[in-house]
Amino acid sequence: MRILIGPSKYVVTLGPSGVLRDAYLLVEDGKIAYVGRERPKGDVDLRLEARRHVVLPGFIQTHVHLIQTSMRNMADDLSLLDWLRLRIMPAEGRIGEEAAYWASLAGALELLKGGTTTIFDFGAVRNLEGILRAAWDAGIRAFVGKMFMDNPEFSPEELVQDTRDGIRELDSLMSRWHGRGGRIWLAATPRFALSSTEESLREVLRAARERGLLIQTHASENRREVELVRKRTGMWNVEYLMSLGYKGHDVSLVHCIHLQEGEYQMLSTTGTHVVHCPSANLKLASGVARVWRMLKMGINVSIGADGPPCNNNLDALREMRLASLLQKVVESDPTALPATEALRMGTVRGARMLNQEATLGTLEVGKEADIVVISVKGVATAPFTDHVDPVAAVIYSATSADVEHVLVAGVPRVLGGRLVGVDEGEVSRRAAEAVEDLHGSLS
Amino acid sequence: MRILIGPSKYVVTLGPSGVLRDAYLLVEDGKIAYVGRERPKGDVDLRLEARRHVVLPGFIQTHVHLIQTSMRNMADDLSLLDWLRLRIMPAEGRIGEEAAYWASLAGALELLKGGTTTIFDFGAVRNLEGILRAAWDAGIRAFVGKMFMDNPEFSPEELVQDTRDGIRELDSLMSRWHGRGGRIWLAATPRFALSSTEESLREVLRAARERGLLIQTHASENRREVELVRKRTGMWNVEYLMSLGYKGHDVSLVHCIHLQEGEYQMLSTTGTHVVHCPSANLKLASGVARVWRMLKMGINVSIGADGPPCNNNLDALREMRLASLLQKVVESDPTALPATEALRMGTVRGARMLNQEATLGTLEVGKEADIVVISVKGVATAPFTDHVDPVAAVIYSATSADVEHVLVAGVPRVLGGRLVGVDEGEVSRRAAEAVEDLHGSLS
Repeated sequence: MRILIGPSKYVVTLGPSGVLRDAYLLVEDGKIAYVGRERPKGDVDLRLEARRHVVLPGFIQTHVHLIQTSMRNMADDLSLLDWLRLRIMPAEGRIGEEAAYWASLAGALELLKGGTTTIFDFGAVRNLEGILRAAWDAGIRAFVGKMFMDNPEFSPEELVQDTRDGIRELDSLMSRWHGRGGRIWLAATPRFALSSTEESLREVLRAARERGLLIQTHASENRREVELVRKRTGMWNVEYLMSLGYKGHDVSLVHCIHLQEGEYQMLSTTGTHVVHCPSANLKLASGVARVWRMLKMGINVSIGADGPPCNNNLDALREMRLASLLQKVVESDPTALPATEALRMGTVRGARMLNQEATLGTLEVGKEADIVVISVKGVATAPFTDHVDPVAAVIYSATSADVEHVLVAGVPRVLGGRLVGVDEGEVSRRAAEAVEDLHGSLS
Repeated sequence: MRILIGPSKYVVTLGPSGVLRDAYLLVEDGKIAYVGRERPKGDVDLRLEARRHVVLPGFIQTHVHLIQTSMRNMADDLSLLDWLRLRIMPAEGRIGEEAAYWASLAGALELLKGGTTTIFDFGAVRNLEGILRAAWDAGIRAFVGKMFMDNPEFSPEELVQDTRDGIRELDSLMSRWHGRGGRIWLAATPRFALSSTEESLREVLRAARERGLLIQTHASENRREVELVRKRTGMWNVEYLMSLGYKGHDVSLVHCIHLQEGEYQMLSTTGTHVVHCPSANLKLASGVARVWRMLKMGINVSIGADGPPCNNNLDALREMRLASLLQKVVESDPTALPATEALRMGTVRGARMLNQEATLGTLEVGKEADIVVISVKGVATAPFTDHVDPVAAVIYSATSADVEHVLVAGVPRVLGGRLVGVDEGEVSRRAAEAVEDLHGSLS
């Protein structure tokens, strides 16, 4: 299939070509075949004119919890302990595969509508099949974690699983899903330091590395969590994880708000990735991570919306904008984390975290055709003159309403702002039906 | 004209009736004629079914700068002084009435599309006619400030105006615009303490009170501003303004980030209003106002998007959500400023600031039919079950893309997400043409 995008007002490649004006982009067989000012010759199957649009790499969110879409707007304005103990954990324990599927599907479609083409989903202990099916059916590119929790002291009964059982389940899921369609992969995700025994943390890491999987865990989100890790291990949270081997290019640590000076240094020297979730960090009153500082130290920081109960949506544009705005006030410097750097966190830096820099994150020939086309023809980005910065317009002004077309691996998933081949209202209705019992049992 | 909204999944009245489920709302001759569970009898001219929607009072933003829409995405990631000196002030000085009109029209239409039905616009020193015409033509309800700046030490040459000339201009504008269609009013807006001489601040206040106008000024946005006021007057910023009489129910002070304990007390005891602009305060690295604390002290705090160069949009949902999220982290308390309180800041508290509580801000019989209908049928708010909190769904999850219908004084301005009788692309294009020269002269 050949798809021509253009003429486009701007193509923001984020590659060596920079920002191209009045340019074309040709997609062939799911890959980018051409980017440039000349109009490619030959017939095409689909042409997307983009004269009043900005064309960008599809957004990459490296930390979401699709299964928690089941709990959206059901756990708001609560303290963290109530939030986890009364709502989130029981819900994750009680949810069935069908409800997991429909909730995750709604979440995955929301992601696509907002321009997100690739996710790292933190997954679940059980019912992972529901998430994987949803990601597959939605058409998004997804790394999905097999979650591990074996410490009954910090894990609700329904979610505790023997680590070896978990690894067996991981192998079974991998045999069916890993690499499917070049679009779905498994990963290994111990929930956080306290929810696993030290033995389990070691075992999961070993198993993940034997299988060449990415590893992600939450770290230093909350002051109390850091205190408890210190009490249990005598170490700071990131320091502890690193002492077990959780470091390097295959490891990403989510949040990293409450760090010691030495921990920043360790992240930097080991090439360990950090994922920033600005909305969730505010909503749970966790704090604000020192993202601009980390980036300047050479730490790769990517971005994610986290789960719908702590955000409460999965909108990449909201997260990139908020990441930029927060750093300005944290650093008392309005030049901190400018628009282009926020966009890089949601694209190339995400690709780097996923070890997919060769195939994702920029608009360059040979890369996967994961593309988002954003309209600047409406009043929300007006007046859009030739002197306006197109990246600022996207990051600071555009909203998900301005996302016009989205392609994943060259397949159009959103056209004219609508999901292709999906009745959005119907998915939303079925998701509500599927979780009605779960909600009833918790409200 | 008779308009029936319903059956509606939820009507959030914010009045004594609270949240009504499966309810109807009848509009007659621009006013709310009925709200309740019974279906009103008789023919109607328009019926808006809202089975999978939440019906709310139209949003009220009490601090915007429509004229600065001309500068959107032209002044990003700059330090405050460069932002004002190199971009905003020269633009406000050079802009003509035609460019002011088209930029303001784009801004006003963006506001309506996002569910904002009433604004307090800070206005301009000159070209106010352009803003007033735009507000009128867009169909929004607007209080528009005649801006005063007479201190050449802190005002660019092009914007300095003799106070008596300014008051004459105010009178002339009032004779043509004040109260037009029950929808447009003038107000008095000295820019900030330093931009006016003390004599001017006193004169404007006296003139405003003689004419029964609302008064608004910026205060304590920036640490440096507070230091300079202290140096000039020996007083803290809010303390100084109050010493001149800037206090009471007709006065609103915008930002109020850097306050002394005594200043909080004075705001509370005098019933002076505060306007919070969370995005702009982050973007300019100003800080975060202690909104939750002020509300608990009995200070009326309403909300506004501020200007498009420091936000960069005019989206009420974004501002209410961000206001809530920021207070949680500032107070280290995830229960701070819950969704309903954020919604109240964008509705009833705005009405209170405008001294329009009798006519605006809630959905009650006899009030102006300023109404917003938000869809919860899409994936961004899924799954929406009977156990979900509709206010949390609106404040935390919905985006401007979910705003379906908007009425101002009973006139439909947005239907099905589209501006009624307006070619949005055309307005955006004309706005770009009108400011092209201005942008060229600054870039």
